[in-house]
Amino acid sequence: MSDTSQQAALRTVFFVSDGTGITAETFGHSVLTQFDVRVRQIRLPFIDSIEKAEEALRTINATCIADGQRAIVFSTLVKDELSDILRRSQGMYMDLIRTFIAPLEQEFGLKAMHTIGRSHTSTDSAEYKNRIEAINFSLAHDDGQSSKNLEEADVILVGVSRSGKTPTTLFLAMQYGIKAANYPLTPDDFERGKLPSSLLPYRDKMFGLSIAPERLSEIRNERLPGSKYAALANCRYEVNEAETMMKREGIRWMSSTTKSIEEIAATILQEIRSNGR
Amino acid sequence: MSDTSQQAALRTVFFVSDGTGITAETFGHSVLTQFDVRVRQIRLPFIDSIEKAEEALRTINATCIADGQRAIVFSTLVKDELSDILRRSQGMYMDLIRTFIAPLEQEFGLKAMHTIGRSHTSTDSAEYKNRIEAINFSLAHDDGQSSKNLEEADVILVGVSRSGKTPTTLFLAMQYGIKAANYPLTPDDFERGKLPSSLLPYRDKMFGLSIAPERLSEIRNERLPGSKYAALANCRYEVNEAETMMKREGIRWMSSTTKSIEEIAATILQEIRSNGR
Repeated sequence: MSDTSQQAALRTVFFVSDGTGITAETFGHSVLTQFDVRVRQIRLPFIDSIEKAEEALRTINATCIADGQRAIVFSTLVKDELSDILRRSQGMYMDLIRTFIAPLEQEFGLKAMHTIGRSHTSTDSAEYKNRIEAINFSLAHDDGQSSKNLEEADVILVGVSRSGKTPTTLFLAMQYGIKAANYPLTPDDFERGKLPSSLLPYRDKMFGLSIAPERLSEIRNERLPGSKYAALANCRYEVNEAETMMKREGIRWMSSTTKSIEEIAATILQEIRSNGR
Repeated sequence: MSDTSQQAALRTVFFVSDGTGITAETFGHSVLTQFDVRVRQIRLPFIDSIEKAEEALRTINATCIADGQRAIVFSTLVKDELSDILRRSQGMYMDLIRTFIAPLEQEFGLKAMHTIGRSHTSTDSAEYKNRIEAINFSLAHDDGQSSKNLEEADVILVGVSRSGKTPTTLFLAMQYGIKAANYPLTPDDFERGKLPSSLLPYRDKMFGLSIAPERLSEIRNERLPGSKYAALANCRYEVNEAETMMKREGIRWMSSTTKSIEEIAATILQEIRSNGR
């Protein structure tokens, strides 16, 4: 999927949902990345009434006419009365729910409930409350700013400044409800040759992030151009010291250099879960 | 979908992916919430080799035997050679990719690339860099801590303390790459009867969050039990003042009381996009 290539005609892709549309969009992206097509994306969230479905239908049809070709419609509409309306559009209708609901009804021997808004975003669920609590925990324990309640942490990320700790902890909290603290490993720690003392009781919760010094220098130069902090020699020193320390202390670690925060988070989750925690 | 109900037999659900598994999981959750079944969820991410696929196959088959019933397998495996292995499992194989790839190949007149790891998590993409930049922006502009570079903000959330601003800005950044600042509206602002002066040049970027005083009091009591800050009378006062101020200043706003951060974020996105920004 590419927004810039010049070869192919532009396709409009709609993500239609009775909720936020995040499921339709996440899934649609995954499928579309398998094709070298230029796409224009339009979200149509909160389509939860006949009137809104009919308005969405008009939007999609008008787009098909204007584009001179069929739009692709990824839909997670749950109610048949709404999806039946969109199914009549001139677009290509990809019904994510119905495609998988029917075989599951047979498998479970149960009818699907076809109720809107029972998704993972329900604010009453324990899972949702855990996620919000985890976000607050991760923010309160960002960049070593608090050592309070570290016994509650599911994981404590360590690594040199700008190795990717903060966005990873926020993603772990938001996606998985994981309480993740993060602590920088600094030149002070390297000179002392010891982990920050407040972390010592929690060694088995620690997980390290490292990064190629060249990449680290790039990232730091965006923040503080020309500084000693960003200089390649200094980045090499810090990364080397941090990796030596993590090896010596028996801390599991991975490189964040070419990994997205989603990939880093999924890897950490797998590690801490397979560790029985 | 329920993890606690006692009636039905427990079903094991696998989310299998050559990447993080987030797409399979997000989608699987959406589908499963339509059924009143108890599920146990197992993620099998990073299945990107024949060996790993065969190991996953053994895990799934062993689970089916132990459970005495078929597991459900949501898969986003892209490569046929890997999904062909999992397809042979004793579980019910829900092939998210192939189900939709074939009709799209016909529609586009293109073969799918069947390459792993071309998802939205690619760290080289401009979109990914935007998301990371947006997360850093949101953190630097959390809770009114900086008025620098506000001209870069896509949206500035305002509202009383604990109305949901911070998790919403982080979600906007992480999911959509939206640069969102957030500013508290405080009793000082209400006494002065004015918006914080640093915000005045950016009135058209402002979006308000309000909340039912009863819910606000609950949330604040979890943080500072028995405080004046958390008292219902004070919450009523602050919410009333904030809503009066937002109305007077012409700031669009919504209630966060029963909305998840996903729903709040999707609503805000729709508002700021329909505003031409």
